Amino acid sequence: MDPDAVAKAFVEHYYSTFDANRPNLGNLYQENSMLTFEGQKIQGSANIVSKLTSLPFQQCQHSIATVDCQPSGPAGGMLVFVSGNLQLAGEQHALKFSQMFHLIPTAQGSFYVLNDIFRLNYA
Amino acid sequence: MDPDAVAKAFVEHYYSTFDANRPNLGNLYQENSMLTFEGQKIQGSANIVSKLTSLPFQQCQHSIATVDCQPSGPAGGMLVFVSGNLQLAGEQHALKFSQMFHLIPTAQGSFYVLNDIFRLNYA
Repeated sequence: MDPDAVAKAFVEHYYSTFDANRPNLGNLYQENSMLTFEGQKIQGSANIVSKLTSLPFQQCQHSIATVDCQPSGPAGGMLVFVSGNLQLAGEQHALKFSQMFHLIPTAQGSFYVLNDIFRLNYA
Repeated sequence: MDPDAVAKAFVEHYYSTFDANRPNLGNLYQENSMLTFEGQKIQGSANIVSKLTSLPFQQCQHSIATVDCQPSGPAGGMLVFVSGNLQLAGEQHALKFSQMFHLIPTAQGSFYVLNDIFRLNYA
């Protein structure tokens, strides 16, 4: 399994879910998952979904510029670092963002998000 | 030990060393350390220092905009996510960058960098 291919597939799945059906992102997090969103710390799948679905915009479209990945240690985890643009409905200019995910293997052969840190890159 | 304070102290130490004496950054990496620099993958302290000291600029000054941190799992590791500006000598405009570090505790009670991913955020 090529880690770069796994990372790319995860990123495409994550942002297409975000843009189409944000509540479904809950499946990617667990109770020990952490999100730091623009400096605000949130823990647990339900709280994370509650945060992501209450952001002050409805329609949005992520486009990905770069995806980098590295193994996070001997336990099979993977660090994924993303940069891209976030276009909000009705806004003229896209927002630049950077985001990192720490993916942990599950017993079912998939991954969940243990760590998620998101920042807008203000110009 | 407050993780946010540790992260902030690490970040200040890292970039002040980068700006003043890049070869000394080698002390922060080990043989299994990984750097992905603008998509280029490099492994091991000596190779990482070789990359960082051969970047096509001599004098530079990092300024930090945000530092976020989260524990990376039960083993005491820490994820540190940084955004900031990089001013190169002789250039009018600073470059925006994002960088993440995965810090692993050492037997000596300190941390080393296992994972390092750096990206410029082009405007």
